[in-house]
Amino acid sequence: MFKKVVIVGVGLIGGSIGFAVKKKKLAEKVIGICRREISKEAAIKSGSVDYATLDFKEGLKDAELVIIASPVGKIVDIAKIVAAHADGSVILTDVGSTKEYITQGIERIIPDNIKYAGSHPMAGSEKSGVAFAGERLFEKSLCIITKTVKTDKKALDVLRRFWTQIGCRVELMTPKMHDAVIAHVSHLPHIAAFALAGSVSSREYKFAATSFRDTTRIASSDPVLWNDIFMTNKKAVMEAVSEYKKKLSIIDSAIRSGNSKRLIAILQKIKDERDKL
Amino acid sequence: MFKKVVIVGVGLIGGSIGFAVKKKKLAEKVIGICRREISKEAAIKSGSVDYATLDFKEGLKDAELVIIASPVGKIVDIAKIVAAHADGSVILTDVGSTKEYITQGIERIIPDNIKYAGSHPMAGSEKSGVAFAGERLFEKSLCIITKTVKTDKKALDVLRRFWTQIGCRVELMTPKMHDAVIAHVSHLPHIAAFALAGSVSSREYKFAATSFRDTTRIASSDPVLWNDIFMTNKKAVMEAVSEYKKKLSIIDSAIRSGNSKRLIAILQKIKDERDKL
Repeated sequence: MFKKVVIVGVGLIGGSIGFAVKKKKLAEKVIGICRREISKEAAIKSGSVDYATLDFKEGLKDAELVIIASPVGKIVDIAKIVAAHADGSVILTDVGSTKEYITQGIERIIPDNIKYAGSHPMAGSEKSGVAFAGERLFEKSLCIITKTVKTDKKALDVLRRFWTQIGCRVELMTPKMHDAVIAHVSHLPHIAAFALAGSVSSREYKFAATSFRDTTRIASSDPVLWNDIFMTNKKAVMEAVSEYKKKLSIIDSAIRSGNSKRLIAILQKIKDERDKL
Repeated sequence: MFKKVVIVGVGLIGGSIGFAVKKKKLAEKVIGICRREISKEAAIKSGSVDYATLDFKEGLKDAELVIIASPVGKIVDIAKIVAAHADGSVILTDVGSTKEYITQGIERIIPDNIKYAGSHPMAGSEKSGVAFAGERLFEKSLCIITKTVKTDKKALDVLRRFWTQIGCRVELMTPKMHDAVIAHVSHLPHIAAFALAGSVSSREYKFAATSFRDTTRIASSDPVLWNDIFMTNKKAVMEAVSEYKKKLSIIDSAIRSGNSKRLIAILQKIKDERDKL
C-alpha cells in the first residue's frame, strides 16, 4: 500500500499502528520519529517500527503517509515540523482524541503538498507506552475520520482504506460532530471515573469490589494526556458534564423523595438501552 | 461443619453459596427454599442445592444455618417467616447489600432460639439468576459481617468460619459503618454508572469504546434490586452522591477556567490512589 509510513510518537497507539502495519504488510518500511533518545531506544527495542530516529528531516524523507501519534496538546506543533521537512506529496493524519482544535490548527499551517485529514482510532487503555502496544489493539474498534470543506478526497479514501486494513470500522464525520459525540462516550466517562475514584477515601479502598474497579479503571489514565483532551474540547466536555449532573440529580431526587416507582422506571429505561450494547 | 444449611432465595448469590457449600463439603445437606415454582425448578436443575421446596416448614426442619439471599427489600419479611417456622437453635444470616435497615428489622423480631448476624459477601455481577451462579463467585472476595450489641458471639464465630471456608476474606464492622463505606465503594458507582449510561443518546451508543463499556457495565443491573438498596441506605447514599457532585464540580471548574496546572494536580492525585488498587 505504501513504500514508507512514518509514525511520529511511538507509544501505545503509535507502536500498535507500527505493529499492525508490519503484520498486514501495508508498507515496505515503517519509520518511527521520536522526541527523546529513551523513546527512540524503546521504539526500536519493541520491534513496532523498522527504524527510529530523532531527526525529522531524515525520518520524513520520501514519506508517503505520516501519522502523528503524540499527545493531543503537541500534535499541531509537530504538524508544523512535519510541514517544514516533508518533501513531495504526503498524506498526513493524527490520532488525537479531540478533532476540531487539531484540524483547525493543522489546516491553517500546512502547505499544498501535504494532504491532511484527522483520525481517531478509538482504541487504547489506561496504560501508556510502547511496552503495552500490540498489533491487535485496533481489531474491531471504530476509527472516526474527520472531513472538512478543505479535506482532500483522495487522501480521505487512502486513510479509509488504511484504517480498514488495520482492522477498524471507519466512520466519517465533521470535527465538530466528532467532538460532541466523543465528549459523551469517552471524555465524560473519564471525568466521571476520576471524580468517582476521588470520592472514595484511601481507607475505603480496601472494600472496593468489582463495581468500583470497573467504573474507575480509567481513573488510572495519564493526567497530562487527559488535561490536553479536556482543554482542547472544553465546550463539548462542559456541556456533557452539565447534562450528566442533571441525570444524577434526577436519580438523586427520586431516591431522596422515596419515589420507588419513579426510580425503577428511570433505571429500567437506562438498563434497557445499556443492555443493547 | 453443618448437617443442614438452608438457603432462602436461590439466585446468583444463593445459588453460588449452594455450589460453594457443596464443593467445600461444608454441609451434609443444602436445601433451597424458593418463593415460586419456576425458581424451585431452576434451583433443582442448576445442581446448586440438594433439594428445593416452596414450603418453609419443611425446608427449615432441623436447619442449623439459614442464609437469606433474597432481594434487600424482602429480607426482613422472610426473616419473620423463618422465625415462625424454625425449630431448635438456628444461626441466621442474610446477604443484603445494606445492613442497618435489615439488622434493625431482624433484631426487632427474632426469638431467642435464632442467633442473627448480617453478612455482605461483596461478589456478584450485573447479571442475576441461578443460571449465572458458580462455586467460585466468592473466591478472594470480601465478606463483611456486621456486629451490634445484640450479636451472639458464637454465631459470629461460626459465620466468620463459614465465609472464610467459602473463600472470602472477612471483615467485621457495625451496620452503620458498613452502610457508609458501601455507599461510597458500591452504591455510588452504581448511581454514577446509571447516570452516565443515561447521558448518552441511543444514536451515540454505537460510538462507545471500552471506557464507556467499563464505566457503564453495572448500569445493566436489576432496577428493582437497586431501588431496594438505594432506598434502604438513603442517607448514606445521598451523602455519597453529594460528595461526588462536589468532586465533579472541582474537576469541572478547573477545566472551565482553563487551569491546566490545577487540573493535572487533581487528576494525578486521584490516579496515584487508584493505581494502588
